Amino acid sequence: MPVFLDTSEPDFEVEFARLLTAKREDSPDVDDIVAAIIADVRARGDAALLDYTARFDRLDLTAGQLAFTPEEIEAECARVPARERAALEMAAERIRAYHVRQMPENAQWTDPDGATLGWRWTAVSAAGLYVPGGLASYPSSVLMNAIPAKVAGVERLCITVPTPDGVVNPAVLLAARIAGVDEIYRLGGAQAIAALAYGTQTIAPVDKITGPGNAFVAAAKRRVFGKVGIDMIAGPSEILVIADADNDPEFIALDLLSQAEHDESAQSILVTTDAAFGQAVAAEIDRQLEILERSAIAGASWRDYGAVIVVRDLDEAAELSNRVAPEHLELCVADPNALSRGIRHAGAIFLGQWTPEAIGDYVGGPNHVLPTARSARFSSGLSVLDFLKRTTLAQMSSQALRAIGPAAEALATSEGLQAHGLSVAARLRKLNK
Amino acid sequence: MPVFLDTSEPDFEVEFARLLTAKREDSPDVDDIVAAIIADVRARGDAALLDYTARFDRLDLTAGQLAFTPEEIEAECARVPARERAALEMAAERIRAYHVRQMPENAQWTDPDGATLGWRWTAVSAAGLYVPGGLASYPSSVLMNAIPAKVAGVERLCITVPTPDGVVNPAVLLAARIAGVDEIYRLGGAQAIAALAYGTQTIAPVDKITGPGNAFVAAAKRRVFGKVGIDMIAGPSEILVIADADNDPEFIALDLLSQAEHDESAQSILVTTDAAFGQAVAAEIDRQLEILERSAIAGASWRDYGAVIVVRDLDEAAELSNRVAPEHLELCVADPNALSRGIRHAGAIFLGQWTPEAIGDYVGGPNHVLPTARSARFSSGLSVLDFLKRTTLAQMSSQALRAIGPAAEALATSEGLQAHGLSVAARLRKLNK
Repeated sequence: MPVFLDTSEPDFEVEFARLLTAKREDSPDVDDIVAAIIADVRARGDAALLDYTARFDRLDLTAGQLAFTPEEIEAECARVPARERAALEMAAERIRAYHVRQMPENAQWTDPDGATLGWRWTAVSAAGLYVPGGLASYPSSVLMNAIPAKVAGVERLCITVPTPDGVVNPAVLLAARIAGVDEIYRLGGAQAIAALAYGTQTIAPVDKITGPGNAFVAAAKRRVFGKVGIDMIAGPSEILVIADADNDPEFIALDLLSQAEHDESAQSILVTTDAAFGQAVAAEIDRQLEILERSAIAGASWRDYGAVIVVRDLDEAAELSNRVAPEHLELCVADPNALSRGIRHAGAIFLGQWTPEAIGDYVGGPNHVLPTARSARFSSGLSVLDFLKRTTLAQMSSQALRAIGPAAEALATSEGLQAHGLSVAARLRKLNK
Repeated sequence: MPVFLDTSEPDFEVEFARLLTAKREDSPDVDDIVAAIIADVRARGDAALLDYTARFDRLDLTAGQLAFTPEEIEAECARVPARERAALEMAAERIRAYHVRQMPENAQWTDPDGATLGWRWTAVSAAGLYVPGGLASYPSSVLMNAIPAKVAGVERLCITVPTPDGVVNPAVLLAARIAGVDEIYRLGGAQAIAALAYGTQTIAPVDKITGPGNAFVAAAKRRVFGKVGIDMIAGPSEILVIADADNDPEFIALDLLSQAEHDESAQSILVTTDAAFGQAVAAEIDRQLEILERSAIAGASWRDYGAVIVVRDLDEAAELSNRVAPEHLELCVADPNALSRGIRHAGAIFLGQWTPEAIGDYVGGPNHVLPTARSARFSSGLSVLDFLKRTTLAQMSSQALRAIGPAAEALATSEGLQAHGLSVAARLRKLNK
């Protein structure tokens, strides 16, 4: 049974705190194994990749077979049904249109002291995207990771995807082609992350690695961080729905189940101003769980981590939501824009009854790679900024150096950094000659 | 002796690769010690903080003495000489003026399908800034970390600074006051990071931790990452100067020494089109090393990691610089702006002969917290964005859901996520009634 809480009950704070701090994921400690795999790939390169692929994916490859050939990609893409292809193309177009707007501006100006200042954004040269194999091999995630990279201007974008027993999801290859991915490798696990970070004879190293993966992939990404950039380490998915009584319980039930069906560790929370509505949604969830294909997963998630919270008013709802800092937040109320203004911490907000979270997973336009585990308090979803970096620019005129140089000298002296001070003083001396 | 390389020599590639991959820092493995300290702070709170402070900083405090009182801050600030105070105030003003321009815009638009999309930036609620004690207790770093946080809109900003034997750098407290810091704690090491991340009876937890520190602090930041956001883990400082023959060798020598004097692991590289100029700079460095206060440190850095590289032309210089991806890059050439356009990877660029790197450390305006160890390939210096996060917004009209909902359904079905598809289908059914 999910928990039913009411903010007017005396034990609410205790129960809510328990909900916030529930440890939903118990990652196995695979760090030693992963360290050994990375060291092996660094030492033996392709040979190590082929050994691990034979062992873990039951697939014997030569180095020349690590990459999909254009003909292989073409053949796989041809297997994708027309309806799915059209949907992927629409999704890609909408995701691209959204992310193009995220491109930041360069800037340059000259201030009254005569200092010309500014910054310039440049793209990461090469990026690698990890795509899980098997059931969680989602073409939508390929679009969500690859399109921002290409919009940012990444010149070389490669994908690694494990193909256990040689099987690949053709829609993943089609999504990669639609997104403009340059190289696709039959490779998974920590060995894929090691290859992307350090390179082998066949795979050139990249500068940034993104994409979801299992515990081995996550541990490998943590290990190579610093050598390359990485995106966040994603935890289990979450949704919080704020709904008043004027909603269809079936809609809300299905939205909550959309998160629950991802993973037994997913968390779905309904916050409502109407206790009876909360009960109606819970009843509808029970009905749906009888027929859903993934009811074992969704049922476990709802039972172990689900919650219905009754609040006095929408202000209180916003306040609780800010404490949760949910990955996904639906605002199913009469004036969702007004409520939205009280939200300070959330990965993505879905406003109004015609915006189920699933729209955002696929075709809305915003990214579906979002901060989990309360990290929306300090981080954002994936964007073009993840594939860009900013170089600051400064040019002093002689007038500017005269105006601000003495202050730099004073601070350098105060910090005991003599050469810093002298580098300014020598120039001022020349200027004052 | 620093290395002298020439791109026209046959062994250049080998020697340059050696320079790029030289391991300059040998961090002690303190991870187990740090894990124990963090666990202890989580278990015992203030009591653990007081124990570690007594042990490591030889300072017996009560919990009530962890924070500096306004009176204590006032008394310390009064000890800062007027010239230094004025310099800090000028620096703060210039840093603020630069960072205010970094504030990103919110966005909202409605696309032709009737989908209203956008994003909104919000500030991290609470941030903590670690300030080292002792010799590396730099007021300039307080400004560079605290001002972007306050510009971003961080409501609660606190500092931890160890005060060994009770001694604090008054300029650090003054910089904190000028920057608008809200709380200052006498606390250092892994215990400070643990307190900021998890909170104790006296110190409320924060959402983001930034600032430099020793190996213990760096290991603690890595450990609490995920629970809170952190900035980069900074490595030793670096500078690359591209200079033609038309420069004063003394200027360039002092700029190279400005990095070298930070740390024996710092790296200073001169890339020049003129071999004789390179020799003149090296000779000037040797002269300066005889008189510099920090010549032991600067000399070791220059000897072990310094380099003079002679190139055929400035295109080649830019190409080499991109491979180094230096933290600091000076362009001391006739047309620095033209050369700058060929630079793709650098933390900060300083253009022209009147812009010594030291200006950027203190009063230029751009941030001096910059990516080291070649990480400018994929990351940027500290900015207001580090204290902001972005929430994406999506609201479908009924028309929009009709237009794009079926594609979401198709992709959900293809990915085997039935509830996702049903959450869209149920709404489309109602709309089509």
